[in-house]
Amino acid sequence: MSDEIKECCGLFGIYNHPDAARLTYLGLYALQHRGEESAGMVVSDGTVLRGVKGMGLVENVFTSERLAELKGSYAIGHTRYSTTGSSQLKNAQPLQVDYSRGSLAIAHNGNLINAWLLRDELEAHGSIFQTTVDSEVILHLMARPTFRRFEEVLVDSLLRISGAFSLVILREEELIGVRDPSGFRPLCLGKFGESFVLASETCALDLIGAEHVRDIEPGEVVIINQNGVRSIKPFPETRKAFCIFEHVYFARPDSMVFGESVHMVRERLGRQLALEHPVKADMIIAIPDSGNSAALGYSHASGIPLEIGMARNHYAGRTFIQPLQQNRDFKVRVKFNPVREVLKGKRVIVVDDSIVRGTTCKARLKSIRDAGATEIHMRVSCPPIKHPCFYGIDFPTKGELIACTHTQEQIRGFLEVDTLGFVSLEGMLKAVKGDRANYCTACYTGEYPIPFGGEADKYVLERKTTGELKP
Amino acid sequence: MSDEIKECCGLFGIYNHPDAARLTYLGLYALQHRGEESAGMVVSDGTVLRGVKGMGLVENVFTSERLAELKGSYAIGHTRYSTTGSSQLKNAQPLQVDYSRGSLAIAHNGNLINAWLLRDELEAHGSIFQTTVDSEVILHLMARPTFRRFEEVLVDSLLRISGAFSLVILREEELIGVRDPSGFRPLCLGKFGESFVLASETCALDLIGAEHVRDIEPGEVVIINQNGVRSIKPFPETRKAFCIFEHVYFARPDSMVFGESVHMVRERLGRQLALEHPVKADMIIAIPDSGNSAALGYSHASGIPLEIGMARNHYAGRTFIQPLQQNRDFKVRVKFNPVREVLKGKRVIVVDDSIVRGTTCKARLKSIRDAGATEIHMRVSCPPIKHPCFYGIDFPTKGELIACTHTQEQIRGFLEVDTLGFVSLEGMLKAVKGDRANYCTACYTGEYPIPFGGEADKYVLERKTTGELKP
Amino acid sequence: MSDEIKECCGLFGIYNHPDAARLTYLGLYALQHRGEESAGMVVSDGTVLRGVKGMGLVENVFTSERLAELKGSYAIGHTRYSTTGSSQLKNAQPLQVDYSRGSLAIAHNGNLINAWLLRDELEAHGSIFQTTVDSEVILHLMARPTFRRFEEVLVDSLLRISGAFSLVILREEELIGVRDPSGFRPLCLGKFGESFVLASETCALDLIGAEHVRDIEPGEVVIINQNGVRSIKPFPETRKAFCIFEHVYFARPDSMVFGESVHMVRERLGRQLALEHPVKADMIIAIPDSGNSAALGYSHASGIPLEIGMARNHYAGRTFIQPLQQNRDFKVRVKFNPVREVLKGKRVIVVDDSIVRGTTCKARLKSIRDAGATEIHMRVSCPPIKHPCFYGIDFPTKGELIACTHTQEQIRGFLEVDTLGFVSLEGMLKAVKGDRANYCTACYTGEYPIPFGGEADKYVLERKTTGELKP
Amino acid sequence: MSDEIKECCGLFGIYNHPDAARLTYLGLYALQHRGEESAGMVVSDGTVLRGVKGMGLVENVFTSERLAELKGSYAIGHTRYSTTGSSQLKNAQPLQVDYSRGSLAIAHNGNLINAWLLRDELEAHGSIFQTTVDSEVILHLMARPTFRRFEEVLVDSLLRISGAFSLVILREEELIGVRDPSGFRPLCLGKFGESFVLASETCALDLIGAEHVRDIEPGEVVIINQNGVRSIKPFPETRKAFCIFEHVYFARPDSMVFGESVHMVRERLGRQLALEHPVKADMIIAIPDSGNSAALGYSHASGIPLEIGMARNHYAGRTFIQPLQQNRDFKVRVKFNPVREVLKGKRVIVVDDSIVRGTTCKARLKSIRDAGATEIHMRVSCPPIKHPCFYGIDFPTKGELIACTHTQEQIRGFLEVDTLGFVSLEGMLKAVKGDRANYCTACYTGEYPIPFGGEADKYVLERKTTGELKP
Repeated sequence: MSDEIKECCGLFGIYNHPDAARLTYLGLYALQHRGEESAGMVVSDGTVLRGVKGMGLVENVFTSERLAELKGSYAIGHTRYSTTGSSQLKNAQPLQVDYSRGSLAIAHNGNLINAWLLRDELEAHGSIFQTTVDSEVILHLMARPTFRRFEEVLVDSLLRISGAFSLVILREEELIGVRDPSGFRPLCLGKFGESFVLASETCALDLIGAEHVRDIEPGEVVIINQNGVRSIKPFPETRKAFCIFEHVYFARPDSMVFGESVHMVRERLGRQLALEHPVKADMIIAIPDSGNSAALGYSHASGIPLEIGMARNHYAGRTFIQPLQQNRDFKVRVKFNPVREVLKGKRVIVVDDSIVRGTTCKARLKSIRDAGATEIHMRVSCPPIKHPCFYGIDFPTKGELIACTHTQEQIRGFLEVDTLGFVSLEGMLKAVKGDRANYCTACYTGEYPIPFGGEADKYVLERKTTGELKP
Repeated sequence: MSDEIKECCGLFGIYNHPDAARLTYLGLYALQHRGEESAGMVVSDGTVLRGVKGMGLVENVFTSERLAELKGSYAIGHTRYSTTGSSQLKNAQPLQVDYSRGSLAIAHNGNLINAWLLRDELEAHGSIFQTTVDSEVILHLMARPTFRRFEEVLVDSLLRISGAFSLVILREEELIGVRDPSGFRPLCLGKFGESFVLASETCALDLIGAEHVRDIEPGEVVIINQNGVRSIKPFPETRKAFCIFEHVYFARPDSMVFGESVHMVRERLGRQLALEHPVKADMIIAIPDSGNSAALGYSHASGIPLEIGMARNHYAGRTFIQPLQQNRDFKVRVKFNPVREVLKGKRVIVVDDSIVRGTTCKARLKSIRDAGATEIHMRVSCPPIKHPCFYGIDFPTKGELIACTHTQEQIRGFLEVDTLGFVSLEGMLKAVKGDRANYCTACYTGEYPIPFGGEADKYVLERKTTGELKP
Repeated sequence: MSDEIKECCGLFGIYNHPDAARLTYLGLYALQHRGEESAGMVVSDGTVLRGVKGMGLVENVFTSERLAELKGSYAIGHTRYSTTGSSQLKNAQPLQVDYSRGSLAIAHNGNLINAWLLRDELEAHGSIFQTTVDSEVILHLMARPTFRRFEEVLVDSLLRISGAFSLVILREEELIGVRDPSGFRPLCLGKFGESFVLASETCALDLIGAEHVRDIEPGEVVIINQNGVRSIKPFPETRKAFCIFEHVYFARPDSMVFGESVHMVRERLGRQLALEHPVKADMIIAIPDSGNSAALGYSHASGIPLEIGMARNHYAGRTFIQPLQQNRDFKVRVKFNPVREVLKGKRVIVVDDSIVRGTTCKARLKSIRDAGATEIHMRVSCPPIKHPCFYGIDFPTKGELIACTHTQEQIRGFLEVDTLGFVSLEGMLKAVKGDRANYCTACYTGEYPIPFGGEADKYVLERKTTGELKP
Repeated sequence: MSDEIKECCGLFGIYNHPDAARLTYLGLYALQHRGEESAGMVVSDGTVLRGVKGMGLVENVFTSERLAELKGSYAIGHTRYSTTGSSQLKNAQPLQVDYSRGSLAIAHNGNLINAWLLRDELEAHGSIFQTTVDSEVILHLMARPTFRRFEEVLVDSLLRISGAFSLVILREEELIGVRDPSGFRPLCLGKFGESFVLASETCALDLIGAEHVRDIEPGEVVIINQNGVRSIKPFPETRKAFCIFEHVYFARPDSMVFGESVHMVRERLGRQLALEHPVKADMIIAIPDSGNSAALGYSHASGIPLEIGMARNHYAGRTFIQPLQQNRDFKVRVKFNPVREVLKGKRVIVVDDSIVRGTTCKARLKSIRDAGATEIHMRVSCPPIKHPCFYGIDFPTKGELIACTHTQEQIRGFLEVDTLGFVSLEGMLKAVKGDRANYCTACYTGEYPIPFGGEADKYVLERKTTGELKP
């Protein structure tokens, strides 16, 4: 029931295309699902960097007029989640600055776990911070006075930061892509005629018609300029930690992520679920659209027919006026409506990708029951989520994660379903064909691939600037 | 490929609920798919009727503040399609007037085929028209001076109009629902505690949690006031003519329309398609979401597995900025992206609800081919559309309907698919369990259930007021 | 202190100019002071009438895009005051309709005192009303079926209405101007190359550079078409009743109204005031800008120097956020600030055009006292306003008019000034050079030039449709 | 004709008031004339600083909702001029940052002439710049690592900057006001109950009802915190250089600036003008409102009566749609209309505050001539402007200043007036009672009080960042 997860971020970059701004707009359009709260882009004409940022969807932030003002052949863009509040505009990305070597813009997907330590250190040496975005420390690190070449400075700076970071960086005539050595977040390289493209997911390449060349590797820094595409690997070797939740929920099913089709992984998760938690039933239905692929897999493996038991209202937007009496759960129904004729008198297997808080899930299951289902068997295509993420996914706090505070049987009772089954950790890892040791599963296991001391840096940061982040 | 069809209209009415405005808002929200261009509602507090109308989606037309101003327990609402243009606001519904007996508001779904004749006649007797909506004639007919009671006047007026009309009418303390004697468009009655509800589709009842009592019958006039619900049937008996395209495309799958589940009808259309046009293939995919139910039916009947071969971008809105080079079909790709890993090297059956112009369909099929499908077998869950509709569906003109200008083999060639199959008329009619003689199939057969003389009234109307309708 | 008077309306019409829409925009811009609440225009291309209306200032209602859509060489426009409320958009003018003879648009300045009687009669014969604007009855009168020619119908209709009405009427290829036989509201004729122009005030002619030909005479109907300008006088002779308040406050000082310069009349009012109410003082100051001309006249006649004692904040708009503690009169100060150095220790004569409620006046005088004035002598360039207006000026009700409920000595006490003087009725009439018998002075004398029976029609109208007018 | 001068900036600050945000809003409202292009404020609740900035007028940037979010008792605000362009939002003030000692916001009126040199130096030591506002260097100077106390750092930083700077600075619990040692721009201190206020002009104090305590002195730093108001004077003694153009045009007439009433200074400028350039005429008229005070002075000194010869359209806003034929000067007429009846056949003295480019002036004088004036004697209440300003006034470049390129006789010819007279430098200085040596008159004399080497720093800055400033 991944409604309850705030999105991650989406990155896009393009090198050497006369229509860079509009193509970046398209790229961000395709990556909208990674961040609905703000969007921005910076375009370089070879000399000057110009930017537009705004709160809201890509569609609303960029107008034809604004895009036309962003002249140039080099661009990066960003979609972002964030808490509401107009004052947060300053935190929208890309961040753009002038410093001794010229101009620089940066966009970041992930979360730095040592951002606050670095920020304290940088402030102690004279830096001033204009946002509360962790990525601003990277800019300050890069601006420290030195006799080294730009590339050395970049590497030095990257070696100082720790955590999850996929980055796109724009200079006057250069586009740089970075993926942290653990490779938490995806980043891929595309080719579009004579242009090069960087994007969080391949669906952005598909939309503009670019060819998917390869993924940026964990620990790789790709420098794209007039000399072509050059790659360096400045980080010491470390274990990989691809975020498995990208496959479970985040990424679009039509994307290739970490070398695999997201839809295919989800379909296999559904098959595995059927294997681990078989049950007799008349039909399988998916919570649209997050459960679609896994439900299909469950149907293929079990032979039980898939049915369309819930209809989605495609107009259900983000604002919604409730009637005065609050006791009825309109919010749930405005998005999905059960198809009574399908469900009436039937034993139903309901498949969704994950359970976070459990409240939305409960409301949806109730509406299925109200529509006449006689048995409900809930199947979830990932294990119970029990631990917060410090690498870029905004799960709620431990106390709000239902799997933290309830046993599986208690969750079953809370959801009022007949049976409940989660894919096992092992089962989930089977579904990703790549080396399983390469994945971060910390939200299920609590085993954080990058250790941190004392209280998590993220929360320190949040507490100190509380007023800024949640005014 | 029903992108190319402009929507119909959606109606909602509620009697006796203190939160009438907000519930009407919800009802319209559920009926948004029937008309995206404007929305409006009129609310009565028992004495005064107040209205709000605007261009755009329900979500944008009504704000909390505006709804709060619409005090009262009786309301009707309307969603409408219309050509673009700010000047068209005056044509948004409900229409609301004062006349000798008090105040009156009306909202209409359908199309009157004798509107222009009546308009000419009414103008000749002194009526002035402030809109170019055909429904305005009903108001003028009802305002003619007479010694009769309101109900007699209403009936007299209804007997004068001809064509397709489902109506909701609001008076100070009365709500009236009307369905034309052929029953072209749906209208249903619900109960919500002590309140009564009228709606185009049951999905609107579901959203507010109202119980579906029954459909308003063809030729029925339902008068809801302090004496309860009373029904009269003033029209002479005539053949029924339920619009089968409501089942094929218009209505939401979770609605009951003409006594049947829309999803179930579509599923049966898919089964019938499999029967009529079997083919060997590796998988079936649906054009989301219009082809979903039929694709499921095809899979159930054929045993060929359903796969998710196209991903839908849920953010694809109505405005979209194209890159400068126009040759690439971004519009198609921004909405749907083929899932390459699913399609690569596969023989694919593609199911959609209908083909209108054929151009959008062609572009989507091309993207499936580009993703690696080796064979494409197009299956369409209704017969070829060859005739314009004069009863409320805004198909393009004959010259633009591909089935008018091409043979099926030519269409197959145009779409560049390996095989092409449409459900037969007989097959389609089998899928609706009710009496098949009750359906209007004029867009497939050219047999118009209500004849008209000379050139179609609709086009006369359009031509005469060209400047108004298309400024 | 005429802040407290809602504005009247402004009219503009143009015949035979390829850029009719933009020139009408300019004309309305110049007439903005006559109505701030809504604006609209209708343009004819010889065949079709197209309109745009909206709430707000001319500047906001019309965009370049909208004007560009309004193609044609004939146009009328209107600025209007109205109570707030989005639902009131339907009452914005011009009203535009289709009827048996074609299309018609009308804009009205004034108030019909028999509108409600006519409306009742028309509704009894089948008319339906879509607005609560009194002018809609004129359209219905003109639409009554008849064998007469258009011009006869127009005259018949005009002979039925009673009250104050300056009108501009647009047909496909004809522009008509009407001024009621009493001539309450101004209307003038201009020439602009080969084009003819109608406008409420000459300042609109000045702005577009048109020549002021003459005023439309009371009782005159001017018909402008391909045959040139033709004039008919269908009304029986009656006494004239030019609204003297146009000179006192409404009209712009740079306009010629009723044959005289508004500024010059006001200057003479000031001179008369000095004659009737002399006083020893150090200086004269005006309440800007409504008192400017009269203050100048007072200074010229008395020899006492004029000073600038109050500065105007030119940015003071219509919305204004008050601090939380409401006891301070920010609203008064945000508009005008006394110039302390000028006023300190001085005996000051303060001149304004009128006193309506008295509360705003009191607040401004207090701020002058606070700035150090030792004596304040209030001088008002019209007599006390004691009676409501039924001819188009929206004074508050009797109970709110301070001169209704207080003696002059009580008003002086209420305002806390040392002396108070109003121009006498005779004095005021001396200032207008034309025949004094031609003016309506009902708001001062209660002698209404057009009698009405029973309760005033205007209030009947308001009461009956209360919900509509003030939602 | 000071239309042609872009505005300066306006500053406001308040310490210790529970409704700080709304009072700052009011203060900025009163200072709107000092900058129309953007507005912003930052409010501190003692711990966290929150800000809102936006393009446009104060009225549009701040809504009730936004102000309600800005909780706290300490605030600073800013109104600013700037070139258009959405990307310029980042340059709106106050600038707000976090650094090692906490949070800091700053707003600046004036222009630093060594900003670019400092910026280069700071970037060389690792600073990154997020705006192109010269004031950002102050923040970076203050953030340099050091063991000194805040106050010492502040002083150090202020000693590094050169040029014109009035500043308001906000810390968590402290409000600081600074005026450069020459005192170019005004800044005053007010008291409002237990609160202290800083403002560019006293009219802002008047609006909120605060008492004007005194001006901040040149070279004074006022520190307002829980210990009260403390003042330090860290700058070496230097000659004063009050901007005389504040009196000539910028400041509101109801303000006290540099110890004198702006209106009174202007009135004396008018008197001096009468003395230096007497002429026989029938009347004096002012260009409203910039020439009002001087015209009054001219009238008082000469005995020639003041008349109202031009009416101002109070609705003339910033956007304005021109008719298609561009040859007519609608822009001039939409703002002012000559009063024909006043001017016809008269010899007229026209008084305005200054002539910059001369083109607007010429158009207005032409409209006076067209209205029938037989003689026009132009009188200008300041000397010819011949030199650019580097201290905060955005005059056009030398080539565009008419007094740079034309002799006075040529200007007279260009304006097509009978005589032309400017106040002499000596005359102008007589009108300010204070020590004349204290004023900057560089725009008239070219004697810049603060010398700079090579090309002016301001233009270097502008050139280097051209793309940013004028995209």
